[in-house]
Amino acid sequence: MKTKIITVSREFGSGGRTIGKEVAHKLGLPCYDQELIEKVASESGFDKEYIAEQGEYASESWLANQFGAFYGSIVSRDSLWLIQRKVILELAQKSCVIVGRCADYILQGKVDLLTVFIHADMKFRADRIVRLYGESDDSPERRLKQKDKRRAAYYRYYTDIDWGVAKNYDIALDSGRLGIDKCVELITGLY
Amino acid sequence: MKTKIITVSREFGSGGRTIGKEVAHKLGLPCYDQELIEKVASESGFDKEYIAEQGEYASESWLANQFGAFYGSIVSRDSLWLIQRKVILELAQKSCVIVGRCADYILQGKVDLLTVFIHADMKFRADRIVRLYGESDDSPERRLKQKDKRRAAYYRYYTDIDWGVAKNYDIALDSGRLGIDKCVELITGLY
Repeated sequence: MKTKIITVSREFGSGGRTIGKEVAHKLGLPCYDQELIEKVASESGFDKEYIAEQGEYASESWLANQFGAFYGSIVSRDSLWLIQRKVILELAQKSCVIVGRCADYILQGKVDLLTVFIHADMKFRADRIVRLYGESDDSPERRLKQKDKRRAAYYRYYTDIDWGVAKNYDIALDSGRLGIDKCVELITGLY
Repeated sequence: MKTKIITVSREFGSGGRTIGKEVAHKLGLPCYDQELIEKVASESGFDKEYIAEQGEYASESWLANQFGAFYGSIVSRDSLWLIQRKVILELAQKSCVIVGRCADYILQGKVDLLTVFIHADMKFRADRIVRLYGESDDSPERRLKQKDKRRAAYYRYYTDIDWGVAKNYDIALDSGRLGIDKCVELITGLY
């Protein structure tokens, strides 16, 4: 079988990770999400939590707020990016599904790729994160907005491409409107 | 059968109009594109060519360049918008496919809607417009960039929403990567 990679970029709470896992399961492929973080952790020596967090903290305002820790942060984040890039390129030697982590950008033009973006409206995502992750002091809407902003900033910082613009994906789906199962079916059918 | 409308927004040269027509044909629905312009023409008394053109000329720079004709243009363009809006709302009484003309925005929340965005890379679209519309003094890339810019500006001017952002569509597809037929199949399957 020819190697082909599916990358799933997603808004927080849209079910993109679940969709990626389901697609991989249906196609009999490995799915890298948490596993990717673990690989980066073992190669870099950084803590898993730190790696998961760093994937979403590249905004200028964040840098400005943390000015005291500026230099150290930017260095470790950039080395993390390089290790992550290397891990993704290695994983992409074999067909798989990769969720998040700018894999679409890293693999563009290097392998046979199907790039997917999953999004949904605020209400669908808010209900979903409360159900999955419980309540917190912040409202779900506020948590979603912050996460979206950070993911977009991280993506922009490392790729110089706008996150969530339809042109950058082979297929973009509203999981709230179409349903998680329908998204899985559509993506599986395209493989 | 319950009334359901499919709106197709598209980049120039991406085959969005062809896809809309094919989807309508397969589902046995009317497709409004040129027909919509004709209806607006007959209701407004404006010339068809003028209406087709006005759909893409709302950019500030265009306004600035044409300052002499500013007032007249903006009045007639805005009345055209109102007539077009009325025609689209009337057409949406029955299931159909509507291509372009901000129909997605106009019908949002008013009817059962499937919103589609079709895009493709520059090469695919350039080859396609030369094949369909022939050569011109401008390079195909330049023609595409100008059209994209005007459509985006028109959409932004009347809807205050960014054109081509994945979040604004139920499904966005790269017709160059997936192929026109696959796009038709996916959309038809979602109806």
